[in-house]
Amino acid sequence: MRSPLRTDASGQRETTRVEAFSDGVIAIAITLLILEIRVPAIEDASPDQLLQALRDLWPSYFGYIISFATIGIMWANHHSIFRVIARTDHYLILTNLLFLFFLATIPFPTALMAEYLGHPAERVAVIVYSGWFLITALSYNLLWTYASRANRLIDANADPAVVTSISSRFRLGPPAYGLAFLLSFFSTPATLALLLGFALLYVLPYGNVDR
Amino acid sequence: MRSPLRTDASGQRETTRVEAFSDGVIAIAITLLILEIRVPAIEDASPDQLLQALRDLWPSYFGYIISFATIGIMWANHHSIFRVIARTDHYLILTNLLFLFFLATIPFPTALMAEYLGHPAERVAVIVYSGWFLITALSYNLLWTYASRANRLIDANADPAVVTSISSRFRLGPPAYGLAFLLSFFSTPATLALLLGFALLYVLPYGNVDR
Amino acid sequence: MRSPLRTDASGQRETTRVEAFSDGVIAIAITLLILEIRVPAIEDASPDQLLQALRDLWPSYFGYIISFATIGIMWANHHSIFRVIARTDHYLILTNLLFLFFLATIPFPTALMAEYLGHPAERVAVIVYSGWFLITALSYNLLWTYASRANRLIDANADPAVVTSISSRFRLGPPAYGLAFLLSFFSTPATLALLLGFALLYVLPYGNVDR
Amino acid sequence: MRSPLRTDASGQRETTRVEAFSDGVIAIAITLLILEIRVPAIEDASPDQLLQALRDLWPSYFGYIISFATIGIMWANHHSIFRVIARTDHYLILTNLLFLFFLATIPFPTALMAEYLGHPAERVAVIVYSGWFLITALSYNLLWTYASRANRLIDANADPAVVTSISSRFRLGPPAYGLAFLLSFFSTPATLALLLGFALLYVLPYGNVDR
Repeated sequence: MRSPLRTDASGQRETTRVEAFSDGVIAIAITLLILEIRVPAIEDASPDQLLQALRDLWPSYFGYIISFATIGIMWANHHSIFRVIARTDHYLILTNLLFLFFLATIPFPTALMAEYLGHPAERVAVIVYSGWFLITALSYNLLWTYASRANRLIDANADPAVVTSISSRFRLGPPAYGLAFLLSFFSTPATLALLLGFALLYVLPYGNVDR
Repeated sequence: MRSPLRTDASGQRETTRVEAFSDGVIAIAITLLILEIRVPAIEDASPDQLLQALRDLWPSYFGYIISFATIGIMWANHHSIFRVIARTDHYLILTNLLFLFFLATIPFPTALMAEYLGHPAERVAVIVYSGWFLITALSYNLLWTYASRANRLIDANADPAVVTSISSRFRLGPPAYGLAFLLSFFSTPATLALLLGFALLYVLPYGNVDR
Repeated sequence: MRSPLRTDASGQRETTRVEAFSDGVIAIAITLLILEIRVPAIEDASPDQLLQALRDLWPSYFGYIISFATIGIMWANHHSIFRVIARTDHYLILTNLLFLFFLATIPFPTALMAEYLGHPAERVAVIVYSGWFLITALSYNLLWTYASRANRLIDANADPAVVTSISSRFRLGPPAYGLAFLLSFFSTPATLALLLGFALLYVLPYGNVDR
Repeated sequence: MRSPLRTDASGQRETTRVEAFSDGVIAIAITLLILEIRVPAIEDASPDQLLQALRDLWPSYFGYIISFATIGIMWANHHSIFRVIARTDHYLILTNLLFLFFLATIPFPTALMAEYLGHPAERVAVIVYSGWFLITALSYNLLWTYASRANRLIDANADPAVVTSISSRFRLGPPAYGLAFLLSFFSTPATLALLLGFALLYVLPYGNVDR
């Protein structure tokens, strides 16, 4: 029989460093997003010219808000799932690295979207952007499925209702981002509205999952 | 009855990961500020030319100092309030993410201010800069108000005098930054002096809040 | 006689801050890699032109994947070895800093490789890239050898089979990356295939080392 | 009477978040240094041209090595002093923020030095570079002096020999960097050799300070 939360000799939780490293990567990725918005450099701009230039940056602001909110929510979910994951193993570390790979890359499709929104090639940029969210959501599900299947790495003391609730929430991710990805081939505004909507949905409480 | 500081089975505090993630985002935002000061690249500059070019960067230095001090103090306050916050919930995580959103964006208005200070459009830049501090202070108050209202997430063992003292200090933020914001429509030097002054005020001790 | 895991008066493990600082540096280096892939900036690009420009970035994607996977695995190994290292001393801190020096520099040879792959000077770039992985692997072995030689800093309670297993795995690093380095003087595709292969090999489980 | 290491209700050490935030800022500053070395972008460079361009970057490599080693050692010292500092207060947080301000700025004088070494204005750049190290060392001493004066924040159980040993080591910093700063007005190579030498000196063990 094993104890519900395995700790090493000094009482450190087994998942501590996985969480710390993930916190680091997620915190850096979310903060690097701002570097992709460049201050307009206009020689001797009049106040009106600067205001106009700042207004013209709206695709950058829009991408920044969607990506920041989405990464922020992914962090909050990571926090939720590692409250019930008690153990680590080779494949948890691996699927977590895969998830971090897709998440850490998000600044690139965000900058791409900001660069081409409102220009002839905007469709390509938005397809890449929404597709990247889809693939990130899929890798996130792989991580959770691996950890929770047959309670493989779940704390024996964890409330089964919380585990089930996380699973049903994660199950919504791929079809939702899949829909946004499909939509991106037809309508840019609808796609972006949907992506923003998914982020804002998180404002609603989720019963017993969050704390 | 619940225990004053809720911990999980291995004794980890409930707020540990929220603090760790916030520390990460704040540490990155404060350190990225330096990337916005570009080394002057003058082909075969004479020593005097380089000295002059370094002197001409004063708006960058000025913005760097104000923003570094302000973010640093926001971190110190975050540290203070999470000494008395014992629990997390959905809306604490959400209001904390909102606060981190505004804080992580500060490098952009800082760079904007540095680019246009001393140029015709400086008013626009300084309005954005001081306005951003105001909105960040407002989001910070939202976080603290949510956590402390009716002692919602406060450690039952926390000294009530400390909680009251934090609340009165936080109450000063929005009117102070609101004043700087209003002033920014009339006088750039007065606005910047005020913002710098707010940061320096922190050098004074605060009775029983800090430790 | 000393206790297996030395902790200070409050029970903090002696290696906690070395791990935290290393996690920070590794997390930042791995996340900065994305900044080296620049969004193509083509004025009024048609969708086809943007697609073509995105395809032309393949050396950047390729370098990003290899470097991300390699750094990620180095982090996982760091996590493994500090599960059995119980104590720190002057030279552990020093050899760890040396290892972090080489690891933190990886974004530079990665960007160099991405810039010149498919151009006349690609050999030079690939020699530097694979050579840098070799020297990083050597510094990593120095760290492990110092800590594990005669169980110098190893937890007295650590399973000797785990320590032996880590040692045999580390022993493979330098000859493997040495081979890639030698190969880089003759064939660019073979070198890159090998570097990617080393990273993918990690997908295989390692018996009792990982957890 | 107070306990030697004050902890909160859940057993967290009082200095934990100060250490975590400092680790974050130091880890980011040391890792950002690599972003200041730009890959040479030469259209269709021959292998020899690329090799030459890489060789011409030597001031960048040199600055990178000195700054990385110096920041790394400052981190190691931070680690040492917080092993004996048991409490935090308002002015410890403040002097620590001041130290982090100077440390986080180091990428700027490093890039300045790399840009102008070997050019007519190199003296100006090297004066700024060595002067910045001097002021950083002074702020570091302020932090240590504040914490250790009359054992203000020192763990009551700390070995007095360790505290004395740290103090004598810190006392060497300002005169050493002051000498380098003075030398920078006369000889660039001697200044840089001295700065590199200070970093390498750390390879020597320090008796009972390090662990």
